[in-house]
Amino acid sequence: MALPSSRPAPLLPSRGRLLPLGMDEVRLTGGFWGHRQHVNGAATLEHSLTWIRKSGWIDNFRAAAEGRAHRDRRGPIFADSDVYKLLEAMAWEAGRRDDPELDAVIDEVTAVIVTAQSDDGYLHTGFGGPGQSARYSDLEWGHELYCYGHLIQAGIAQARARGEGELTRAALRAADHVCEVFGPGGIERVGGHPEIEPALAELTRLTGDPRYLAQAALFIDRRGRRTLAEIPFGRPYFQDDLPVREADVLRGHAVRALYLAAGAVDVAVERDDDELLDAVVRQWEATVARRTHITGGMGSHHTDESFGDDFVLPPDRAYAETCAGIASVMLSQRLLLATGEPRYADLAERTLYNVVAGSTGEDGRSFFYANSLHQRRRGEEPDAHAESPRADSSMRAPWFAVSCCPTNVARTLATLGTHLATRDDDGLQIHHYADADIRTEVAGTGPVGVDMRTRYPYEGEVTLRVTHAPGTPWTLTLRVPAWARGAVLTDAAGDRHDVRPGTTELTRTFAPGDEIRLHLPMAPRWTAADPRADALRGQVAVERGPLVMCLESVDLPDGRDVDTVVADPSVPPRDGTGGDGSTVVAGALADTVDEAWPYPALSERLEPATDQAELLLRPYCARGNRGPSTMRVWLPAVRPDHG
Amino acid sequence: MALPSSRPAPLLPSRGRLLPLGMDEVRLTGGFWGHRQHVNGAATLEHSLTWIRKSGWIDNFRAAAEGRAHRDRRGPIFADSDVYKLLEAMAWEAGRRDDPELDAVIDEVTAVIVTAQSDDGYLHTGFGGPGQSARYSDLEWGHELYCYGHLIQAGIAQARARGEGELTRAALRAADHVCEVFGPGGIERVGGHPEIEPALAELTRLTGDPRYLAQAALFIDRRGRRTLAEIPFGRPYFQDDLPVREADVLRGHAVRALYLAAGAVDVAVERDDDELLDAVVRQWEATVARRTHITGGMGSHHTDESFGDDFVLPPDRAYAETCAGIASVMLSQRLLLATGEPRYADLAERTLYNVVAGSTGEDGRSFFYANSLHQRRRGEEPDAHAESPRADSSMRAPWFAVSCCPTNVARTLATLGTHLATRDDDGLQIHHYADADIRTEVAGTGPVGVDMRTRYPYEGEVTLRVTHAPGTPWTLTLRVPAWARGAVLTDAAGDRHDVRPGTTELTRTFAPGDEIRLHLPMAPRWTAADPRADALRGQVAVERGPLVMCLESVDLPDGRDVDTVVADPSVPPRDGTGGDGSTVVAGALADTVDEAWPYPALSERLEPATDQAELLLRPYCARGNRGPSTMRVWLPAVRPDHG
Repeated sequence: MALPSSRPAPLLPSRGRLLPLGMDEVRLTGGFWGHRQHVNGAATLEHSLTWIRKSGWIDNFRAAAEGRAHRDRRGPIFADSDVYKLLEAMAWEAGRRDDPELDAVIDEVTAVIVTAQSDDGYLHTGFGGPGQSARYSDLEWGHELYCYGHLIQAGIAQARARGEGELTRAALRAADHVCEVFGPGGIERVGGHPEIEPALAELTRLTGDPRYLAQAALFIDRRGRRTLAEIPFGRPYFQDDLPVREADVLRGHAVRALYLAAGAVDVAVERDDDELLDAVVRQWEATVARRTHITGGMGSHHTDESFGDDFVLPPDRAYAETCAGIASVMLSQRLLLATGEPRYADLAERTLYNVVAGSTGEDGRSFFYANSLHQRRRGEEPDAHAESPRADSSMRAPWFAVSCCPTNVARTLATLGTHLATRDDDGLQIHHYADADIRTEVAGTGPVGVDMRTRYPYEGEVTLRVTHAPGTPWTLTLRVPAWARGAVLTDAAGDRHDVRPGTTELTRTFAPGDEIRLHLPMAPRWTAADPRADALRGQVAVERGPLVMCLESVDLPDGRDVDTVVADPSVPPRDGTGGDGSTVVAGALADTVDEAWPYPALSERLEPATDQAELLLRPYCARGNRGPSTMRVWLPAVRPDHG
Repeated sequence: MALPSSRPAPLLPSRGRLLPLGMDEVRLTGGFWGHRQHVNGAATLEHSLTWIRKSGWIDNFRAAAEGRAHRDRRGPIFADSDVYKLLEAMAWEAGRRDDPELDAVIDEVTAVIVTAQSDDGYLHTGFGGPGQSARYSDLEWGHELYCYGHLIQAGIAQARARGEGELTRAALRAADHVCEVFGPGGIERVGGHPEIEPALAELTRLTGDPRYLAQAALFIDRRGRRTLAEIPFGRPYFQDDLPVREADVLRGHAVRALYLAAGAVDVAVERDDDELLDAVVRQWEATVARRTHITGGMGSHHTDESFGDDFVLPPDRAYAETCAGIASVMLSQRLLLATGEPRYADLAERTLYNVVAGSTGEDGRSFFYANSLHQRRRGEEPDAHAESPRADSSMRAPWFAVSCCPTNVARTLATLGTHLATRDDDGLQIHHYADADIRTEVAGTGPVGVDMRTRYPYEGEVTLRVTHAPGTPWTLTLRVPAWARGAVLTDAAGDRHDVRPGTTELTRTFAPGDEIRLHLPMAPRWTAADPRADALRGQVAVERGPLVMCLESVDLPDGRDVDTVVADPSVPPRDGTGGDGSTVVAGALADTVDEAWPYPALSERLEPATDQAELLLRPYCARGNRGPSTMRVWLPAVRPDHG
């Protein structure tokens, strides 16, 4: 089968206000994200492979092929998907660099997987074999369609990054099987965990075959029509309570809700279905306004990993699963491409820096699954050789019994370049600032190229040096983040322009060597919260550029804890000395007054004595790097009327 | 077998600072609790029986007896225990009134249960039968020992309320079996859910046979020694992380932790084990000071129904399971009897009024499983014919898939009189004020009797009329609740005495007809929270006597919601007009300012316009009685420095 030519990128809509670039068009060269992409390739992939092997999740495919999975299969019912996500991450990584060892691993694991695929395309190690439950007998929890989604995305990565191969063919067989079994007149239901929807839409983008998109559209339209059974968590858990077009806000399991919304945008864009797109935009707006943590983290409930009601955002019970952060970035990227509106890149940036970047440790071998905004217990270093409970470790853990996040981060970091810039008929748009070299072709204009250099997010200077220019006018569009009041653009002629949050455009016949400089004001700033977020009342946070800051007890004197601290937001925060985004704020250390009963009569409440102190805050994404510590993002205000 | 004579009461320690009275010695005659006990007997028992039958939980015993439980058993693995708890409640109820129909039901259900008991005493419908997992193959989750605990408590109720019967004999067979199988040299482990510990201790109190107490002590000493497997929630979930004597605070699953602590007190008291008693007192103190909601509700996490870390007390995510409230009352009652300290009755009173009383609806046929302090969604009337998710209904539901709470409340209300008063060598102590007639024998003095009349908790006047007096001096001790500053006691001679929170004693040669009056000041009062309970910062609550008040949206004008309200704690709250504890406070209704992103720069935050308003608060225990409504206990303070 010959596949249409396409770029190496996970998301390639055929239309939209902006069009994406491939990994080969945007290369991270270093800096904050380049370093993380490097660590991902050098450590996280191998680390994940080791744990996946050790956990038996590759052997599961052997067991299924040999008909003994009912006895020998290990791990959660969706363990297949983590193998696929790892393969996807490795395929993207392999596409960016020459690494025969990596190539060999991909091929080896792929070869194991395909042995478990039935002739009709069915592939899941948990169902359908001897002694196992029947195929599709548990659509609520069985995760077969979810796993296909990740298989298909891995197959697409294979095709776009390395050229069509066995993994792509396995994905196509599975997708054909799904269209056959779940198409009109087949099983007219959906899977409990969305994910196949964006995968099938992308497969049409890869192959040009409209059947996959049609099946994705069917799944989108069927959801919310109660084709799944009632479960203890309720139908909102898997978004089967309301049709996508009718819902006003994201609800239920956060990752499920966000993957579904991402798939709905894919279908809406490819079919010019404005009603569907508007529904997702409306849900995104409500979710961002009322159900999102300051970090961009989504999900307030540990029980069912779900969104809370509006303004249920207690920092000490923030769930903010890493995968939900990734899913939110996926959704925002789709909405950015569809509409061109910078608010989507604003949220993606916030989430990338404050959820995704911080979830993986500096070594690339430890992870947060949940991303709490207030760590009340110092906790202990997790055992490097043992799985951790997924959402309860106060420090990053090497692996989890449910370990969806590490491979999800891995595939995201491997393709991060594709989030930075886009093109349209008029030129190039830069959404995120990082050390990167960008080369692309602008329709009707010709090849353009820009090298971007910056110490962002620690410093606010971004230098863009034009490397390729066609000799005719084109437009360079830069996003000015919503927080960046007072940004200044210096154009190629050296003229300075005040620019406002949103986007700013420069149209010119650029010449190679032209330099454009963007100055984003990085002074740290106090941030408050909507009073309806009751758990944040009387508290303030500090942000610096795109980074949310936090206080860790390891930075307090005398073994003090973060619960003894108050901040004084009448004094502006100032930069620390490390050049690492650290920030110093005025505040005080309070004595604690221990009472036998913590609810005194208001008239009898004792005001604790306080000592003035300067507090050193560091980026939230760098938390947990210096041993056990308590931590908080929101700080009680010394005079509550400031908070 | 002849059993030692004993009182009709679930808890009869052989020693302790105070000794309990039986249900026949303290009869509720009406008022707040008398009415609830009446509704319990008239509606809740029959309602629970209907649902338990309908759910198949009695048929499970038939299925087990006939060896077909592997196929036909229904409900959660601990469903047996709800049958036992209902039997216990019915037995206590039957002991208080002549009701042949109730007697017949008890005997009928008992007859079904015993058919499933093995000759060696083993009894559980979920294990050990054909096609089922082996006995005790899943001590972590299997709940066999937990179910025995409730069987034994039901058997004790049978013996003490109705006279030894088949249910008592089944309980004794099960207890003997447990001592045999889990005694020294047997399975030296514990069950995942404590409950058998207090049951076995009580069985020694019933029978005089020391083996059961010894087995309870073994279970207490074994826990915390990691005889249970690691589970995803971690070993603290079932308190197997630390030996009881070493722990400093209650942690993990709240009901488990509290039942274990109750059993530990029973063992400590019977064995004069001060070290063990001190350990539980220490844990109780830390838990009350840092892990308890203002209602007395315990448990902050929905995921694992567990205590949160210290000061993790967000009202909108309070779990505060009804069963944890009951377990807390059980623990406090034991500590009160052991030590005589009124602080335990203070917490029991708070919990009885604000968790237990409110969990059952006015009709006795609807229940809260979780007791949130902030209901953000109006929700819908639950379907009267369907089970509800246990912790997610905004209104009381008729039954739950996991329905431990209704029968737990039923057995508590049936025996509530036994919480009101105690005796010691010197006289009578009254801990809770309610319409009740009390008759008992004071050792070395003779028969004493007091009729108590009051509109408490709505009004603060309590009249105690002596009905029986031996003609020699004895002491009447009254608890003055911790909140009751300015209480006045009028003695039998008409003299008024200012009395302080704690206890007050009157020693006298009382004569029948003597009247003592206690006046408790019931003015509503503003209450604050420890600043470390971050989610309560800048907020105030109103309490009136023992009642925590709440605001419901049904009491707001123009369809307003509780999230638009601020309270002004500079104005003292005043009584409403209904005589039902309702309270009026000064405050304001604020406009809401909807922003696209809820975290504005502090300098740009908009202050919403407000309209002054009076707010009508009602007792929290009466919430949810007037249709769908949002609700909050903690109110944002109009000037945050008051909160």
